[in-house]
Amino acid sequence: MGTPKLETALKNASELIDQRLRDILSVPDAPEGRVVEAMKYTLMGGGKRLRGFLCIETAKLFDVEETHYARVATSIECAHSYSLVHDDLPAMDDDDMRRGRPSLHKAFDEATAILAGDALVTLAFEILADEQTHPRKAVRLDLISSFSKALGTRGMVGGQMFDLMSPELELDAGALTRLQKMKTGALIEFSVEAGCILGQVPDNTRIALNAYAHDIGLAFQIADDLLDVEACQDDIGKTPGKDEASGKVTFVSLLGLDRAKDQARILVDQAVGHLENFGSEADALREAAHYVIIRGH
Amino acid sequence: MGTPKLETALKNASELIDQRLRDILSVPDAPEGRVVEAMKYTLMGGGKRLRGFLCIETAKLFDVEETHYARVATSIECAHSYSLVHDDLPAMDDDDMRRGRPSLHKAFDEATAILAGDALVTLAFEILADEQTHPRKAVRLDLISSFSKALGTRGMVGGQMFDLMSPELELDAGALTRLQKMKTGALIEFSVEAGCILGQVPDNTRIALNAYAHDIGLAFQIADDLLDVEACQDDIGKTPGKDEASGKVTFVSLLGLDRAKDQARILVDQAVGHLENFGSEADALREAAHYVIIRGH
Repeated sequence: MGTPKLETALKNASELIDQRLRDILSVPDAPEGRVVEAMKYTLMGGGKRLRGFLCIETAKLFDVEETHYARVATSIECAHSYSLVHDDLPAMDDDDMRRGRPSLHKAFDEATAILAGDALVTLAFEILADEQTHPRKAVRLDLISSFSKALGTRGMVGGQMFDLMSPELELDAGALTRLQKMKTGALIEFSVEAGCILGQVPDNTRIALNAYAHDIGLAFQIADDLLDVEACQDDIGKTPGKDEASGKVTFVSLLGLDRAKDQARILVDQAVGHLENFGSEADALREAAHYVIIRGH
Repeated sequence: MGTPKLETALKNASELIDQRLRDILSVPDAPEGRVVEAMKYTLMGGGKRLRGFLCIETAKLFDVEETHYARVATSIECAHSYSLVHDDLPAMDDDDMRRGRPSLHKAFDEATAILAGDALVTLAFEILADEQTHPRKAVRLDLISSFSKALGTRGMVGGQMFDLMSPELELDAGALTRLQKMKTGALIEFSVEAGCILGQVPDNTRIALNAYAHDIGLAFQIADDLLDVEACQDDIGKTPGKDEASGKVTFVSLLGLDRAKDQARILVDQAVGHLENFGSEADALREAAHYVIIRGH
């Protein structure tokens, strides 16, 4: 559980995003309505909205309007949902459970899951392109451009491909770090970057926040590997022990439990250090850095 | 086979698009390079580039620069490839052949095919957002906004969902027209719309070109249904007779062969009629309208 400040901020982020999703997702009374139902199932599936929260809290450091950051955070959560839905497919990670419920292809079917993922990523771009997201065209285009890079072959999709190839590769810590920076890091980094773009933040401030995002992204993944080893299914809402069973290298298998925990803690301290030029307005981001390595416990 | 003017225009479109694709798609010397190889396999698989051609020829009516329409046409062909790759998947239409070669999930594997499709749609947005596509931000944002609508639940994805549901529905000609307008019509209409956006064309001209695109989109689909019944595998490069085998309603099953052919011809004449205010500069588009119902023969 997070601290009170963080919990409030996460709850606020969820409410903001859920409200936008309810406004956007109307199910047409037609056969294709099924794919919108599927999108709702996965979007409303109880995620913590960590990525949306990161966008919102970063944007709030720079007095961005709520309508703007709420829409961008919603777009980010659409992209995150899309990645989970496609990654869970039988041909990919083959996971039947997600957040304690049947994953989308089990609750609906594979074809609907593929299409819902496709529609979610398209919706994410549609939200960003709309003038309600920001009155300045340059801001919207910057968001779309960075977003497409975070999702593409040098980002999330490339990371998932790399991950699927990894059982046949002998990854060292450097290679695994590169893999995770693409697979999970890219969208986490974009979430903070998006807040900076909305805030039209100067480069030197942006560099510190990028570094923060980089460090929590990696800490998050190390914590995920630790959870996979240590947790029971109830804690993580998906099948544990999958990494070991699939022969995948993890930070735990490479470093051992103790060093992996140390590494995660060092990254969290580093992440917090990057926020030194901010006052109490960045407390939720500081607490989030600690939170990423204790979630699920 | 098309007429000489059309053949030259299609060949030029292909060359322009292929050149851009070669520039954009560099395979990284890393495990995730596999997904870029897969994208190249499907993008360079000998498609006729009809959608890219429609964008290019529309843009040329309005003196748009080659760099601009070439990039948008490339983006459209990325989206078209993405839709074919995902539609061919076993969970969807389950087609092992495409353009006379193994479809992507057979040539590579299902996971790579899902990811390649995902990366292609993301790449399409990345191309449109880049300032090389058009110096005016409003033009790029218009393109992205229309594009996302053409691909989403009210467009291509919605149409594919509707199509997958259709064996259990009793579709009449109106419902089938709506299905096809989403599934294949939306991207064809966007291709012409994109040329208009690049040309910053006034509304009245845009309406005529939209109507042209609408009519050839539907004619194209009727012709596809006719081909499925009449052609042998060599002609269409994919498995024929699939519609009937899957119990899907088609324009041929609803109207019969003769009336379906008549309907396609009427639509082509109508499409050409919408171009009446253009001179010989629109000849390739006129010929394309006739071509969509004779391809494969």
